[in-house]
Amino acid sequence: MILGTVKGNIVSSRKCSNLVGFKLLLIEPFFGNKSEIFVAADTLGAGMNELVLITTDNTTQYAIDRSAPIDAYVVGIVDAPPQF
Amino acid sequence: MILGTVKGNIVSSRKCSNLVGFKLLLIEPFFGNKSEIFVAADTLGAGMNELVLITTDNTTQYAIDRSAPIDAYVVGIVDAPPQF
Amino acid sequence: MILGTVKGNIVSSRKCSNLVGFKLLLIEPFFGNKSEIFVAADTLGAGMNELVLITTDNTTQYAIDRSAPIDAYVVGIVDAPPQF
Amino acid sequence: MILGTVKGNIVSSRKCSNLVGFKLLLIEPFFGNKSEIFVAADTLGAGMNELVLITTDNTTQYAIDRSAPIDAYVVGIVDAPPQF
Amino acid sequence: MILGTVKGNIVSSRKCSNLVGFKLLLIEPFFGNKSEIFVAADTLGAGMNELVLITTDNTTQYAIDRSAPIDAYVVGIVDAPPQF
Repeated sequence: MILGTVKGNIVSSRKCSNLVGFKLLLIEPFFGNKSEIFVAADTLGAGMNELVLITTDNTTQYAIDRSAPIDAYVVGIVDAPPQF
Repeated sequence: MILGTVKGNIVSSRKCSNLVGFKLLLIEPFFGNKSEIFVAADTLGAGMNELVLITTDNTTQYAIDRSAPIDAYVVGIVDAPPQF
Repeated sequence: MILGTVKGNIVSSRKCSNLVGFKLLLIEPFFGNKSEIFVAADTLGAGMNELVLITTDNTTQYAIDRSAPIDAYVVGIVDAPPQF
Repeated sequence: MILGTVKGNIVSSRKCSNLVGFKLLLIEPFFGNKSEIFVAADTLGAGMNELVLITTDNTTQYAIDRSAPIDAYVVGIVDAPPQF
Repeated sequence: MILGTVKGNIVSSRKCSNLVGFKLLLIEPFFGNKSEIFVAADTLGAGMNELVLITTDNTTQYAIDRSAPIDAYVVGIVDAPPQF
């Protein structure tokens, strides 16, 4: 899974019907190339600048009630940034 | 999911029969390396230079009525570019 | 999906039995890093230096009659190179 | 699969219910770009600085008893670092 | 699929039970970044320095008799290196 920081959200009025009900968050990777921002769906209620854990690809489907065309999903809100 | 800009489309006369009916769009990534253009299938009707949201891999199948060999699919047209 | 150019093919005499019947093409990416050549299976009959459209991962399975361990598959032969 | 070194773990109190019971390890890739740290779920009991083998994407599901939204999973603890 | 060269193998005594019976090979990519070595499972009997063809992600499952948490699998041993 990927650690990332919530940097905002996007709105899409014209979208697939089974995307309705998901918040679409802009996520900045915590490790690696921070410019490679991507979009993850969320229903946990992650807030701006919170650190979240994201699963990708088909494994997103095991976190949701019904199938949805979502390849990144917030599966956890992280309590504290990792320390090295 | 990936945010990308529609930069054109491609035509393929010799193709798999279950690709018929999809428009094949050239997509430039909005974040990250803009030279890594890829092709996404579309049925929402995204226009030239519109910003779209794309899901990848097997999760594309949850947006379409019948299975198709498509690893990138336009699941939404974005209302406004992200602001930072 | 990925646009790529057919640069040759490979032969494998010792292989999984369900790979028999597929041509194995060397594909050079049309966009991005051209040195990242990969192998895609083909049954459409793409020729040397033709531009093809390739789907990846598990979505390859929706283009073939029976399951096969193939993570890249030629789903279309492109009529003309993209113009910008 | 990816070889990686365990560098720590993360805690998430607000998470998907089917993530409960997995330890969430921070993994540094052994080969390639060491800054691209990611998170893998573990039930084998890998310890700090141990070298582990990780499978990704949907293949994680074949290592666990019930489906879970996990795209990286520790499938083995490696006896000794590779020698070249 | 990926072309790669067998550079060694790894041993894992503590591993998932359904990994037993697979040889775990260290694979150096033939094209692209040669430092990004990864691990592929093998049952074809590929030898040291042989050139092999590898499929990834969930498509590995179509090459094996029973499901296993393996995201890279040797599906063929290549007769001769590609010529350009």
